[in-house]
Amino acid sequence: REAKQKRDEALAAIYEWHEGYRAGGLEPMNSYLALAAKRRGIPVRSLGQQFVFMGWGVNGRRMNLSISENTSWVSLIAARNKYYASVLLERGGVPVPPAKLVNTLSAARAAAAEFGWPVVVKPAGEDQGVDVVPGIIDSTMLREAFEKAIRNTKGAVLVEKHVRGDDHRLLVVNGKMIAAARREPAAVVGDGERTVVELVEATNADPRRGTSKSSLLMQFELDAEALALLEDQGLSKDSVLAAGQTVALRRTPNISTGGTAVDVTDEVHPDNAYLAVRAANILGLEIAGVDLLCPDISRSWRETGGYICELNGGPGLRPHWLGAPQRELCGEIIDNLYPQHHWRIPTAAITGTNGKSTVCRMLHWIWMTAGKTTGVATTNGVWIDDFLVDDRNLSGNPGGVRILTDRTVETAVIEMPRKGLIYLGHPCDRYDVAALLNVRDDHIGVDGIHSLEEMAWLKAEVLEHATDAVVVNADDPLCMKMLQRSGAKRHLLVAESLDSPPMQAHLRDGGAGAYIGERDRTRWLVLAEGANEHYLVPLDAIPATMNGLLRFNEANALFAAALAWAQGVPLATIEQALRSFVSTPERNPGRYNFIDGFPFQVVLDYGHNPDAAKELCRVVRQLPVSGKLHLVSLKLGLRHKAHIGEIVPVLADTFDTFTLSCSPEVVEDSPEYAGRDPLRNMLGYFESCLIEAGVDPSIIETHIDQQQAIREGLAKGRPGDLVLVLSEPDVALPIINAEKERFMAGS
Amino acid sequence: REAKQKRDEALAAIYEWHEGYRAGGLEPMNSYLALAAKRRGIPVRSLGQQFVFMGWGVNGRRMNLSISENTSWVSLIAARNKYYASVLLERGGVPVPPAKLVNTLSAARAAAAEFGWPVVVKPAGEDQGVDVVPGIIDSTMLREAFEKAIRNTKGAVLVEKHVRGDDHRLLVVNGKMIAAARREPAAVVGDGERTVVELVEATNADPRRGTSKSSLLMQFELDAEALALLEDQGLSKDSVLAAGQTVALRRTPNISTGGTAVDVTDEVHPDNAYLAVRAANILGLEIAGVDLLCPDISRSWRETGGYICELNGGPGLRPHWLGAPQRELCGEIIDNLYPQHHWRIPTAAITGTNGKSTVCRMLHWIWMTAGKTTGVATTNGVWIDDFLVDDRNLSGNPGGVRILTDRTVETAVIEMPRKGLIYLGHPCDRYDVAALLNVRDDHIGVDGIHSLEEMAWLKAEVLEHATDAVVVNADDPLCMKMLQRSGAKRHLLVAESLDSPPMQAHLRDGGAGAYIGERDRTRWLVLAEGANEHYLVPLDAIPATMNGLLRFNEANALFAAALAWAQGVPLATIEQALRSFVSTPERNPGRYNFIDGFPFQVVLDYGHNPDAAKELCRVVRQLPVSGKLHLVSLKLGLRHKAHIGEIVPVLADTFDTFTLSCSPEVVEDSPEYAGRDPLRNMLGYFESCLIEAGVDPSIIETHIDQQQAIREGLAKGRPGDLVLVLSEPDVALPIINAEKERFMAGS
Repeated sequence: REAKQKRDEALAAIYEWHEGYRAGGLEPMNSYLALAAKRRGIPVRSLGQQFVFMGWGVNGRRMNLSISENTSWVSLIAARNKYYASVLLERGGVPVPPAKLVNTLSAARAAAAEFGWPVVVKPAGEDQGVDVVPGIIDSTMLREAFEKAIRNTKGAVLVEKHVRGDDHRLLVVNGKMIAAARREPAAVVGDGERTVVELVEATNADPRRGTSKSSLLMQFELDAEALALLEDQGLSKDSVLAAGQTVALRRTPNISTGGTAVDVTDEVHPDNAYLAVRAANILGLEIAGVDLLCPDISRSWRETGGYICELNGGPGLRPHWLGAPQRELCGEIIDNLYPQHHWRIPTAAITGTNGKSTVCRMLHWIWMTAGKTTGVATTNGVWIDDFLVDDRNLSGNPGGVRILTDRTVETAVIEMPRKGLIYLGHPCDRYDVAALLNVRDDHIGVDGIHSLEEMAWLKAEVLEHATDAVVVNADDPLCMKMLQRSGAKRHLLVAESLDSPPMQAHLRDGGAGAYIGERDRTRWLVLAEGANEHYLVPLDAIPATMNGLLRFNEANALFAAALAWAQGVPLATIEQALRSFVSTPERNPGRYNFIDGFPFQVVLDYGHNPDAAKELCRVVRQLPVSGKLHLVSLKLGLRHKAHIGEIVPVLADTFDTFTLSCSPEVVEDSPEYAGRDPLRNMLGYFESCLIEAGVDPSIIETHIDQQQAIREGLAKGRPGDLVLVLSEPDVALPIINAEKERFMAGS
Repeated sequence: REAKQKRDEALAAIYEWHEGYRAGGLEPMNSYLALAAKRRGIPVRSLGQQFVFMGWGVNGRRMNLSISENTSWVSLIAARNKYYASVLLERGGVPVPPAKLVNTLSAARAAAAEFGWPVVVKPAGEDQGVDVVPGIIDSTMLREAFEKAIRNTKGAVLVEKHVRGDDHRLLVVNGKMIAAARREPAAVVGDGERTVVELVEATNADPRRGTSKSSLLMQFELDAEALALLEDQGLSKDSVLAAGQTVALRRTPNISTGGTAVDVTDEVHPDNAYLAVRAANILGLEIAGVDLLCPDISRSWRETGGYICELNGGPGLRPHWLGAPQRELCGEIIDNLYPQHHWRIPTAAITGTNGKSTVCRMLHWIWMTAGKTTGVATTNGVWIDDFLVDDRNLSGNPGGVRILTDRTVETAVIEMPRKGLIYLGHPCDRYDVAALLNVRDDHIGVDGIHSLEEMAWLKAEVLEHATDAVVVNADDPLCMKMLQRSGAKRHLLVAESLDSPPMQAHLRDGGAGAYIGERDRTRWLVLAEGANEHYLVPLDAIPATMNGLLRFNEANALFAAALAWAQGVPLATIEQALRSFVSTPERNPGRYNFIDGFPFQVVLDYGHNPDAAKELCRVVRQLPVSGKLHLVSLKLGLRHKAHIGEIVPVLADTFDTFTLSCSPEVVEDSPEYAGRDPLRNMLGYFESCLIEAGVDPSIIETHIDQQQAIREGLAKGRPGDLVLVLSEPDVALPIINAEKERFMAGS
């Protein structure tokens, strides 16, 4: 009794879910699968109404209702072709009812004469019991059924011996029978008082009985078939049934015609379970609903006889939901399909103020060098290996999702920017590794972040989502402070040198990290754990550091190496990758891109905040430039007047000409430049600061049109000169490339 | 010019094949695949019209036209859903024309307004360009197209921007673009004399242009679309076209509407090839026809622009057949899908007069013990592991084919009987190993075989088909003589002892074999090669030999061990299997089956020829029987009177009672018993021989009814007795089992 109550509760619950999903426009099967995956900690996404995508990248698996990723088209087509499936099964030793494929009524009659009545008529190419007519007992019924079937099928019509016995549905998943139900046709049970009509009405009053194709239980219909069945038993729809008298209203026990089901999973004889598995294997179905007709499921079909009447390649689960509502069947399907499956791929998330994109591209390159198809989402775009998937800024959530749901991707590297974190959150529930590079004064006062501390706190969210390791900047106290929020098992530190006290303490405690060490008067990238030091590669062998000139890229290389090391990439691979990583506009747009093809040097960079700009000034001053240094700035001071003041002295000391412009969108949004003409306000202020710093007004140009500014700046270049362009690469690169062609055509 | 001629010849050839296959009711694609497989030495079978099955057992791969076994249902369904595919591709960075899914005409109009004219309308759920209307340039055309599409689709309708450019079909197979064609719409070329109508008529007069959906080239139709296109150019169907003036009659370049194609495989820019591969990978299609619209296939789509308009999961190959008829494209598909694939599975064929079935079942058991799913076809039935696939005699061709085409089978063991060899031939082109056990006087004079030599010659055909090794009986000179016909690299001999001179010579030459050797007063099964001897297992540890009593099974074990050894089964596995092989009615019906459950001993065997019967007599005499020995014979002397004469003295010396019957089918066919009542003739003759040999007539019974004979024979058994039943197991086993139940119920 207690078991029955539990079962009834489970049934009520499953009904409620089922109808809830349906009412919400969802596919119940997909919803159950998604729920079951979630419970198992498997990342899951719905791809439209039709598909569930579980897992990430190459380890992801799609399902289309109960059809698994590995079910081949060929298998399913073979199973759906009723005649073809029956021939294959019969050859494989699986008992199938004798059947003949016919094209004419006379052939159908000959087949029926051979098998004896009753027979079943099925359109050979169709699925789901559509137009299947069982229990045909004479020539008239046969003609009707044949004519209906031949009208509705592209193929021929199958005439099959109608075999008797209980109708069982056995669910096979990946070579194992995991559930079995005995299906029962729509039937009413008398109470000695009510007529058949009244009993049907009472049954249909049950709110769970629906009329939709996908309802869990279906309403009864007192149609011709039901009336004929009543008549066979000497009853009519107005007969009063005796108490306990059960009268079937359907010849077939389909749920879709009002039937229900009883769970018999524990009663199935091993021979019968094996038969179902064998049937699925013959056709190659990973998930199969096997319809076994036999008198007693607990006895071997070899002994009692039995037939496999149908093999469903994408079976509905209603017989099992109704029969064993307490089981989490979709979960069992996942468990049996993918035991021991590793659903995730290595993921790295990188946040911080400066260097994120470059660290991402370096780590991306390291993984590519390791032979893995690697996705990377940065502020410059999304790539899978060298294929540019999208050139928009899809860093953070949107780009991360793109990569993680791409079926080719083996490893993911995701840049996590401030803004994305605030507005879009994370692309996934957790990362393997995460890095916090630094926290600087950029975008302070924007989007509700008012201090460096608040910014650090925001970015530390990324550390919180890491499980295996986090890598932080030991030289940045704010970063160190955020280690408290790390969710990872290991912490790695990155420092400019071994002099860093936090690094020293960390290594003393047996911790791991990356820093720059000296050996034989050469500066090396060193990976260390406790007392063990590994001199990975001399810095001057890393082209991205320009022989030590690009200090930012030294730090970036340290981070990339530490992340890859924490992810288990072999050290030799990391070394090889750092030796071959080049910061081209294609690989790392807007990051110290040295652009060839002009008769002078051209460098393109974002230069998006004072720190980065100062570092750029330092670099260009050290470059071997015999002529003049020209600045084209489209980025400096867009958001904050204060940045201009901070940077102008360095600029004035560095450059010989200044071509200024700015992106209208950002400037117009900035309260600091509010007024009738924010652009002119900003440019005017910038110009005046430069003049104040001692720059000759005649070498300053300002342009409202950004493209024009780039063109004018490049036009100033002479052999031996260098032009530094601070701009978004997608604004600058088209102009630069066009100008380059003009130069080359002119030369 | 020479190239053009070659191409024209290839085109003519492909046309001839194509139409030939079609005329023969075959599917050209399947026929090409089968042909290509055959050329590559891959075993191939057609499974109905729909499927080609290449290879054997678990190494077999099916194809459904151009859909490969490993193409998942989910992938193909996703690709066929035009809207869904377009969303997935777009997310993956593949350029697709902007599109909107609409359910109403007003939504369709809004989409067109957004994209600008022209637009394309497609039913979203359908395939193969059905109801796709391109080039829609106004609201009226849009309404017509929308209404037609919404009527014919289960889903919604896709309104897509109509992009311009050449239409290319890129064929991707297993991550590689292997062919590309530029498709050209149906068009006529003027000659300054003929009108459009006349040019169309002339084109349609080409016998290669068919009207069937699967013709290689299709006829032109001067329908509304063609007339509208003419009108657009200020022409009518009666206009005379200038010489060389080309006028398209279709907006789309589909072959199915009269178009043709030009091969551009060698011109494809690597970016474009990669784009096609990426598109296929995103959806997971192993074979894909990618429709790329771009102005110049030799330039990167990144540079020129371009769109993937469609991804076909089961692409037709007509564009490539027409564009590059000289290529064997189906062969290239196989090569690219399955590089290095091993198509076959280990196969052993066993022939000879006595012992075939037992050697088969022993070898089957050895392979099962090695953990392989093993199929075996014997005269008693076909099994896959322990699953009885068919209980009929399907030895030789039919059973072999059953096993080799079963997708679960990893190893095949096939009994090759005389009759099957004569009438049905071989199930496959070659075996790895084959054995000739012995050649004795059984079935001589039947089916055109008149002497032992002829019989040996027939059976040697099996040796001829072996590639790796043959195993023959060194004690049988006829077998040794047949070694000359072996097609195998190695010969192994089997002998009762090392005394055999051929065995000695063979080992001296470094050859390998199996024999019985003695060590520590124990007889061992020995495997030897040259001077190296391996004492595998003591014979008395092999239950099937009944402690050395069943000499036939000693020889059978030698053969099974030698075959398994030649096939590379580890020696420890062979030993383990021989130690555990038991000749039960289930495993080896009719071969010395000792049947439990009676209060006396019951032995069932075929006893199908004098040699076997004599050996049986020897065995039963040596068994520990305290009571009487009873014979029930349903098999002896059926075919040849002479056999009765030969065996009667031994029988008379052995048994205490005789219950004789015989199978009517064989006796009635035998010329030696011809007459009014062949059965009584035969039984009378048998009885008289026994009496002549001194048997008391009172202990002889004869029965016309075989079942009755078995029942009466068993009824004679008393505790301590033994009843030997010589019969087909499927005749005897049901009676024996029924009697056993009666005995047990009575006790």
